[in-house]
Amino acid sequence: MMPEVPLDGLTDLMSRVFVALGTPLRDADLVARELSSATALGIESHGVLRFPWYVEGIRNGRIVPGAAMGTVEETETTAVLDCAYNFGQVAGYEALRIAVTKAATHHLAAVVTRRCNHTGRLGAYADAAADLGLIAFACGTTSPPSHMVVPFGGLDGRLGTNPIAYAAPTLDDPILADFATCVASEGKARMALRHSQDLPEAALLDADGTSTRDPAVLYSSPTRRLLPLGGGAGYKGTALAVLAELLAGMLAGEIPDDADRPVNGLFLLVIDPSAFLPLDDFKSHGSALRDYIRSSRPAPGHDRIIAPGDLERSRAAPAPGQTISLDPETWQEILDACEGVGVRPGLAG
Amino acid sequence: MMPEVPLDGLTDLMSRVFVALGTPLRDADLVARELSSATALGIESHGVLRFPWYVEGIRNGRIVPGAAMGTVEETETTAVLDCAYNFGQVAGYEALRIAVTKAATHHLAAVVTRRCNHTGRLGAYADAAADLGLIAFACGTTSPPSHMVVPFGGLDGRLGTNPIAYAAPTLDDPILADFATCVASEGKARMALRHSQDLPEAALLDADGTSTRDPAVLYSSPTRRLLPLGGGAGYKGTALAVLAELLAGMLAGEIPDDADRPVNGLFLLVIDPSAFLPLDDFKSHGSALRDYIRSSRPAPGHDRIIAPGDLERSRAAPAPGQTISLDPETWQEILDACEGVGVRPGLAG
Repeated sequence: MMPEVPLDGLTDLMSRVFVALGTPLRDADLVARELSSATALGIESHGVLRFPWYVEGIRNGRIVPGAAMGTVEETETTAVLDCAYNFGQVAGYEALRIAVTKAATHHLAAVVTRRCNHTGRLGAYADAAADLGLIAFACGTTSPPSHMVVPFGGLDGRLGTNPIAYAAPTLDDPILADFATCVASEGKARMALRHSQDLPEAALLDADGTSTRDPAVLYSSPTRRLLPLGGGAGYKGTALAVLAELLAGMLAGEIPDDADRPVNGLFLLVIDPSAFLPLDDFKSHGSALRDYIRSSRPAPGHDRIIAPGDLERSRAAPAPGQTISLDPETWQEILDACEGVGVRPGLAG
Repeated sequence: MMPEVPLDGLTDLMSRVFVALGTPLRDADLVARELSSATALGIESHGVLRFPWYVEGIRNGRIVPGAAMGTVEETETTAVLDCAYNFGQVAGYEALRIAVTKAATHHLAAVVTRRCNHTGRLGAYADAAADLGLIAFACGTTSPPSHMVVPFGGLDGRLGTNPIAYAAPTLDDPILADFATCVASEGKARMALRHSQDLPEAALLDADGTSTRDPAVLYSSPTRRLLPLGGGAGYKGTALAVLAELLAGMLAGEIPDDADRPVNGLFLLVIDPSAFLPLDDFKSHGSALRDYIRSSRPAPGHDRIIAPGDLERSRAAPAPGQTISLDPETWQEILDACEGVGVRPGLAG
């Protein structure tokens, strides 16, 4: 039996736990909201599932709530943001703020992070930029213990799921994409296993190094190995993962196989389309592009064409009174976290 | 019987034809060299195969040799380059020159093209930027008659093969990638057919809308339809193609389904890594990344790991005395082009 909990109440509860652990209220609210939003969007791997891990991170010093962040290298268009192990979401929005400020004057800006924790859903930053009339391109990278993705033709994990996200304004909702550069992230595999579904073809390697779409293999093999996007053209997926690593890792000064690398690295590029053409024209052409793509007839087995961003919009932002299903284990972990800091687990949201 | 011709001689011959058709010598040499280089790198679809099509383009006014190019929108970090239907390669290198000049002062720069012809191999521009110690990211788009790529779950072509290329400097050769955002471009399909090979799985749609890896289907179906990169996760390939379209098309003011769009659009972003960390550190970490990726054991069926750029390097730039095999049809077309402009087809190169 999955507990059905009100999302607003859960957001408030998580925030109160973060505050009880020394997090400034504004940051606590931000992180709790981001976790809830990701869950509401169906991206459970960046959602409230992560909450107990965040609480544990604060307790063991991996996350430092309220830590003072600041730029350590800076030019008119670029910055390296030292996140000082604050929450990754707090860091991500600070990186975005810096990039947007620079782009307002100089039309382009790029920011990378150092000492950054789990940034959560990368698309959130791109989406926020598009709401300001900007194009954003973001990518992320991870530390070696999370290097589960093998290079094309390889047996050993050498890359993270290294997501890429982008967003662009249109006349209505932004065009938005946010995806791992492997076939399926570990979060996708966990969901597929729970719902007894197969993954797309050639998503994982089994113990013998043979490709499989059975998500159970990920948890029965001695080593968890994910395959790069692209199947027989998987060198393209590897090239995308390497691009993310170059921008979000190397550019921040990381050494690829350094076991002490931070949990995540973030690269955020902002482009002001009004430097190229009137913003309304850009928005109008973006809407036309989406309509043009949607105008294709669906192939057998598909009932309609889903353009980038459509899925996120169809699920929409958390609505007042919205509830979510939590697995009993996660719910118990949340209750334990509350008890541990003396927060009464009420859900009157 | 494939004619085996010296590459230097062929380059010189193509240049002389371009000059006879009114192309300034420097531009003629540049375009001829780019076509030969692509062929030498095994990228035949951007190689000398294209030469007769270029000659025809000059004759019918689609390509305007020597046309005056200039920026029509410009800021300190951005530019829209009106290519005035000059050769795409001449335009591409001019876009690169502008971007590199701006990045030298402002650390980031982005240039898009208007009225641009076939740009040839996108990786060439990224590679040239990396040789200058810069990171480059490029993408390209095409006009509706070349919209052979269906969106994920769709039956109708709505996107071009929209390539993405990037390069970054290391201690030795740049890390370099250059790939279409579909499973296989039409050029790949043509080569596979010629060599009686299958394409990677789910590369094409047949007449019934069923996915296939048989390249012959592309030429027997009433409509040529290519599938986006990613198979069952092909929404990621579509998202990549849409990114290229947004940057290289929409940002240049193109309307997606406008039949009068130019042959290609190019978006070129240049990032100066020395704005983030000492250049030598970046190069060193890039080399370490490549070594780390190569250190994976190969999977069954693979003999080694190929990192982005390795294939291009293994084929290397055209060497003095290098010869290439041309199919008789292409060779005859080249001879015809020479005859048409009164150039004696000597190959003493």
